[in-house]
Amino acid sequence: MLLKVKMLGIDSSGKPAVFLNKQDADDLGITSSGRVQVNSKGTTVTAIVNITSFVKKGFVVVSEEIHRRLDLKRSDAVDVSVAAFPKSLQFIRNKLAGKKLLYDEVHEIVKDVVGGNLNESEVAAFVTALHIQELDLDEATNLASSMVQTGKRLNLDAKTIVDKHSVGGVPGDKTTLLVVPIIAAAGLVIPKTSSRAITSAGGTADRAEVLMPVDLDINEMKNVVKKCNGCIVWGGSLDLAPADDIFVKVEYSLSIDPLLLPSIMSKKKAVGATHLVIDIPVGRGAKIKTIGEADLLAKDAIELGRRLGINSHCLVTYGEQPLGHAIGPSLEAKEALEVLMNKSSMPDLVDKACHLAGAIFEMMGKKSGYDIAKEILQAGKAEKKLREIISLQGGNPNIQPDDLTIGKHDLQVRAKNSGRVLWMDNNLLVSVARAAGAPKDKGAGIIFNKKRGNKVKKGEILYTVYSEKSRKLSRVEEILRLENPIGVGDRMEMLIHKVKEAPVVKRSFMLER
Amino acid sequence: MLLKVKMLGIDSSGKPAVFLNKQDADDLGITSSGRVQVNSKGTTVTAIVNITSFVKKGFVVVSEEIHRRLDLKRSDAVDVSVAAFPKSLQFIRNKLAGKKLLYDEVHEIVKDVVGGNLNESEVAAFVTALHIQELDLDEATNLASSMVQTGKRLNLDAKTIVDKHSVGGVPGDKTTLLVVPIIAAAGLVIPKTSSRAITSAGGTADRAEVLMPVDLDINEMKNVVKKCNGCIVWGGSLDLAPADDIFVKVEYSLSIDPLLLPSIMSKKKAVGATHLVIDIPVGRGAKIKTIGEADLLAKDAIELGRRLGINSHCLVTYGEQPLGHAIGPSLEAKEALEVLMNKSSMPDLVDKACHLAGAIFEMMGKKSGYDIAKEILQAGKAEKKLREIISLQGGNPNIQPDDLTIGKHDLQVRAKNSGRVLWMDNNLLVSVARAAGAPKDKGAGIIFNKKRGNKVKKGEILYTVYSEKSRKLSRVEEILRLENPIGVGDRMEMLIHKVKEAPVVKRSFMLER
Repeated sequence: MLLKVKMLGIDSSGKPAVFLNKQDADDLGITSSGRVQVNSKGTTVTAIVNITSFVKKGFVVVSEEIHRRLDLKRSDAVDVSVAAFPKSLQFIRNKLAGKKLLYDEVHEIVKDVVGGNLNESEVAAFVTALHIQELDLDEATNLASSMVQTGKRLNLDAKTIVDKHSVGGVPGDKTTLLVVPIIAAAGLVIPKTSSRAITSAGGTADRAEVLMPVDLDINEMKNVVKKCNGCIVWGGSLDLAPADDIFVKVEYSLSIDPLLLPSIMSKKKAVGATHLVIDIPVGRGAKIKTIGEADLLAKDAIELGRRLGINSHCLVTYGEQPLGHAIGPSLEAKEALEVLMNKSSMPDLVDKACHLAGAIFEMMGKKSGYDIAKEILQAGKAEKKLREIISLQGGNPNIQPDDLTIGKHDLQVRAKNSGRVLWMDNNLLVSVARAAGAPKDKGAGIIFNKKRGNKVKKGEILYTVYSEKSRKLSRVEEILRLENPIGVGDRMEMLIHKVKEAPVVKRSFMLER
Repeated sequence: MLLKVKMLGIDSSGKPAVFLNKQDADDLGITSSGRVQVNSKGTTVTAIVNITSFVKKGFVVVSEEIHRRLDLKRSDAVDVSVAAFPKSLQFIRNKLAGKKLLYDEVHEIVKDVVGGNLNESEVAAFVTALHIQELDLDEATNLASSMVQTGKRLNLDAKTIVDKHSVGGVPGDKTTLLVVPIIAAAGLVIPKTSSRAITSAGGTADRAEVLMPVDLDINEMKNVVKKCNGCIVWGGSLDLAPADDIFVKVEYSLSIDPLLLPSIMSKKKAVGATHLVIDIPVGRGAKIKTIGEADLLAKDAIELGRRLGINSHCLVTYGEQPLGHAIGPSLEAKEALEVLMNKSSMPDLVDKACHLAGAIFEMMGKKSGYDIAKEILQAGKAEKKLREIISLQGGNPNIQPDDLTIGKHDLQVRAKNSGRVLWMDNNLLVSVARAAGAPKDKGAGIIFNKKRGNKVKKGEILYTVYSEKSRKLSRVEEILRLENPIGVGDRMEMLIHKVKEAPVVKRSFMLER
């Protein structure tokens, strides 16, 4: 069917998509979310169909991707015909039926996900099937490989490339801001890409952005690493393992994460990592709840790494409370900078960073990795290296902790009774920080005066919430009127809660990459 | 966030949807497929988010549904804010985890599906989870009830309302065109709604439309039934169990059908059926492959009917070849009309129609239902009743078989050898009829000269393909060059096929409602 092209600058996340009039779609025998082939001057693109009444009969609105690929001009005519179902759909159906997917099948699926040949429902069905039927290590390996092959890669001329990753879930975890400069200062190459927050109050990219630009392209990233061994950039625009960004969208709304390991490993493989340390925080309120669960994840991660040629170690770490004393991009960047400058001691943060960096040193054959890391930190070498990275990424290398802008509006929360801090509710603290504006408002967040085990007197400040807007602070007050994120007392109360009718399950879900 | 409204006549299948600029979406902290609340003058609508570059910063394009519900005018400003995840998502997650869903949970999901509060991925995940985890009879009952409650209902003042349904899969099955007038002629009320083809060469609505208008609204339908006891209308625009139309879209592209029984039963309950006969065709090339499978389905259907207050019987019927001698809307309507007029004997079609109608009579306490049906048919009472229905639905009551337009272009296919017809490939025959233009081109289809068991001489015509366009007939020729839909020989060949490498699975899938 010949249709006249209209372009409205619709980008459809870079996917080929067409918008058809209902009558034309009926004539073609195609429904919404179906696929058509769009042909112009001998070139054919497969596109997902949207049906709307705003397109007139005889016209087709094409997304920018099609515009570009077919080199179309306004009022060109294109031939639109029904496309066959992609072969990958049959493989997704096989997984729905509980069948194991082979390499070629996985690759075909991932290729079609990235190419936009599978619609939202089909991708969702695949992710759901992986969640329910589970994927074995062969499938995980094939997924990771395919995700690498369908994206860009960083080619550094280095025999050894190290990397660090946290499966996430601990608020205030600014470890990367310490580990990268410690490692790079020791002369090892660490091309670190980080993500922005999805469900948290700040991702590493959000924190780092307070100190320097993080949205480098892949060549700029390469230059920074070549000059100073390390970088801290946002992975989102680098097009490394782009399938993951599509899977994550589905995972987020369903609160499932079957692609956790393939996702981590594909991003590491894409930057050429040869050695990797994975942090698995454990505890109530963290992503991984038990040490047993963490060990099972670690086992799979190590084997998956082995198959992909990445020597991987895992550190199972304590995750039942926020790390350090700050949550929120600017507050965390400030805390990290102060620790690097030896202006503040933050024992848990320093301990974790030195364990992670130390593990990398030990993978390189060094002894007492922890001590090496601590020495680099205390000697100010890590600070110097971070300032070098900041400068190369286009930031101000002389930035001082007090230069960072913190929200003007604050709310001090005081202890209602004396005792010890018995627990800190990670999820609720994240909700509070997000209500205050984090991660979008960089100056929003929380500073803790007390953490688990600390003695508290009635009326003492437990924590202060900062916000850039008073309106947002009012939302925080509303939350705190209903719920309490920090428990103070002499001993744990025995009753957790009563269940007298079907409870509303408040399952927390942390999706971080 | 206050945004200026733009309307572009986007209907988004009647769902509330908004189109935002990327920057506004980022400022709101929302991604594509997320949900926002749109508030205007105190009224709030939840809408699914689309992010596009064709909307300028500070503007929001709203779908017609929002336009209508908020009574918006061009350049009104609306307040857009992030909406919480709907509660139903938690229930979908529970099903993903293999948990049984309770009534309130099912109802919440169905309500949100119909209300457009769940995006495509979430609906797909739900349908996928139902397919993999399966639904038990309690869940099926709750689904059917919720699907009824979230749609319109037909309220006839009749104590007994009968209905007939086929799970589908047999090409050329025009039984309904006979059963409805037979039943209505006997004085029973049968408010029959039918669907158009999804994967077949013609649905009952497509066939009936050749004889009369079928897109009546619910009041028109009611009037027809009140006047003559029966009708044959298209169910698609009646808004009976509308959730099903949304589920079907997902099921189609994934070739799964977990909602088969709730779907059938909800549509029957919505028209107030008290007695129901379900046809389950069985055989290679039919939807249900084995008699055992059919009996299991029948068992569930009967129990589901019992719970919903619909007395249900099932007939397991022979489905290994097309029914009658015609496939395609006009050819089938013609065949049905000729049989009703006793101008043609079509033993298999008549046999099946009389068994189905007879089963209904027997449910009403009559004996020898089959004979009653046959008598009504042979006495011409069913023809008279059909003409009454045609007239009341707005068609020409004097329509004759020869008035129906058949495709001008034809292709006669002759036997390449002598023997008997050993098999007819239902799926391939449907592909041929669809390639010829059916169901869209009403005059396209196939007429069979021979069926299973018939003796054939080399060179005799096996079947003729009709098409309205010679271009489409060329596509048929291409298909027939590669594949043969009818096997002629002395005995079945032993080898079905060889498998020397991973085979491309050619699973047929029939999705009909």
